[in-house]
Amino acid sequence: MKRFYGTDLPNPLMLGTAQYPSPAILEQAFRQSAAGVATVSLRREGAGGAGQTFWSMIRELGVLVLPNTAGCHTVKEAVTTAHMAREVFDTPWIKLELIGHTDSLQPDVFQLVEAARILTEDGFQVFPYTTDDLIVGERLLAAGCEVLMPWGAPIGSGRGLNNEYALRAMRAEFPDVPLVVDAGIGLPSHAAHAMELGFDAVLLNTAVARAGDPAAMAKAMALAVQAGQLAHQADPIEARDMAEASTPVIGKAFLS
Amino acid sequence: MKRFYGTDLPNPLMLGTAQYPSPAILEQAFRQSAAGVATVSLRREGAGGAGQTFWSMIRELGVLVLPNTAGCHTVKEAVTTAHMAREVFDTPWIKLELIGHTDSLQPDVFQLVEAARILTEDGFQVFPYTTDDLIVGERLLAAGCEVLMPWGAPIGSGRGLNNEYALRAMRAEFPDVPLVVDAGIGLPSHAAHAMELGFDAVLLNTAVARAGDPAAMAKAMALAVQAGQLAHQADPIEARDMAEASTPVIGKAFLS
Repeated sequence: MKRFYGTDLPNPLMLGTAQYPSPAILEQAFRQSAAGVATVSLRREGAGGAGQTFWSMIRELGVLVLPNTAGCHTVKEAVTTAHMAREVFDTPWIKLELIGHTDSLQPDVFQLVEAARILTEDGFQVFPYTTDDLIVGERLLAAGCEVLMPWGAPIGSGRGLNNEYALRAMRAEFPDVPLVVDAGIGLPSHAAHAMELGFDAVLLNTAVARAGDPAAMAKAMALAVQAGQLAHQADPIEARDMAEASTPVIGKAFLS
Repeated sequence: MKRFYGTDLPNPLMLGTAQYPSPAILEQAFRQSAAGVATVSLRREGAGGAGQTFWSMIRELGVLVLPNTAGCHTVKEAVTTAHMAREVFDTPWIKLELIGHTDSLQPDVFQLVEAARILTEDGFQVFPYTTDDLIVGERLLAAGCEVLMPWGAPIGSGRGLNNEYALRAMRAEFPDVPLVVDAGIGLPSHAAHAMELGFDAVLLNTAVARAGDPAAMAKAMALAVQAGQLAHQADPIEARDMAEASTPVIGKAFLS
């Protein structure tokens, strides 16, 4: 498994921490899935008061913490949020979200590249939430990013992988870069699909937190990610339009 | 989990026994996947000689054996094969394959229904390999079948679920009938998908036997089936076209 800014992930599942029915259920979801990375939003939880309780719980999970800049629409907001997150969490990691479109929460890739450059120069290790655009990916790498996190589909949409072709192209173009499908995953089959394409990890939140049984869904996602990773390594069969008998008949004589 | 002719399956994975690079690898695939049912072809293995070695190995796996009528194109062939299988395996179970089209190996549903009726009257417990046609499903149930096994895609094609709509419709129409997606599965994401739709099991062969590493792929399929089953029970989120912020920002004030 590829290293993320020099760090080995314990497994390829990153789980968000928003929208759970209760902190206890959030904790169960992490335990059941054994997710190795927790994304957390400074802007949602705040830095003091109730936020402290939340941070204590996250720390007790024993996972790697990836703060994000969720809700930021400008370079300035994102950079300020990143600096505060670094102080609160004592980590150079930042998931850079720079939202450009209200309905789809699509990243604004122009601001994204600019903020990535500024933060990298400031010593941050940037995990950019980006589209599946290859050229944007190149610009982000040139700006100093060593990880790319293209969307599967809009955040919270649960649609899975809207554009498998683009994700395949990205995987082929950047064979040595850790690639994470971030956003859009709704079902374990989507998570498995991402890993089957050779992605290095999957980041999801809504699909687990808003499921009827978040802990069970978290476990299902963990199993699916493992399944997809195994399959990618196991050299799957190629899909074909016509059939191929799985049971070639070699001894009809005994029926004659 | 639903019972199959009064029998509980240990898990929802049925695995074929054809096309493995070696008997040892076949055995590893079964061990790694813990598949509960093995489909076997009388016509492929024959009833004596080398066949005996094969049967001994299958018996040692400790799985339920589901003989099939692979390669049969007429009612008469299928019925004769079923009778021989019952003698050899001492089981009333028969996976009824009646192939009607050379390129797609599509079932001939007219002959299928007729053979299912004859075999049921003869005391067989028929697992019909069928299309995703609802009306055919009704006829097979009326003919005495208590299990339906619609295809996902042509045998060995690895295309996954060609017609999700039809499979959903079948699930909704026959809520109490054990339904198995049989054929077409190429990847764990396909297997998970079938289970997410509420299917009771998945039957596959080529995707495992022809993978570069069959044992690893078998394990991947087992994980995926479990993931899909868990997800179905966990009440997944509904897919939507537009985004929904997974991290609602409730405290912007501290940034001002």
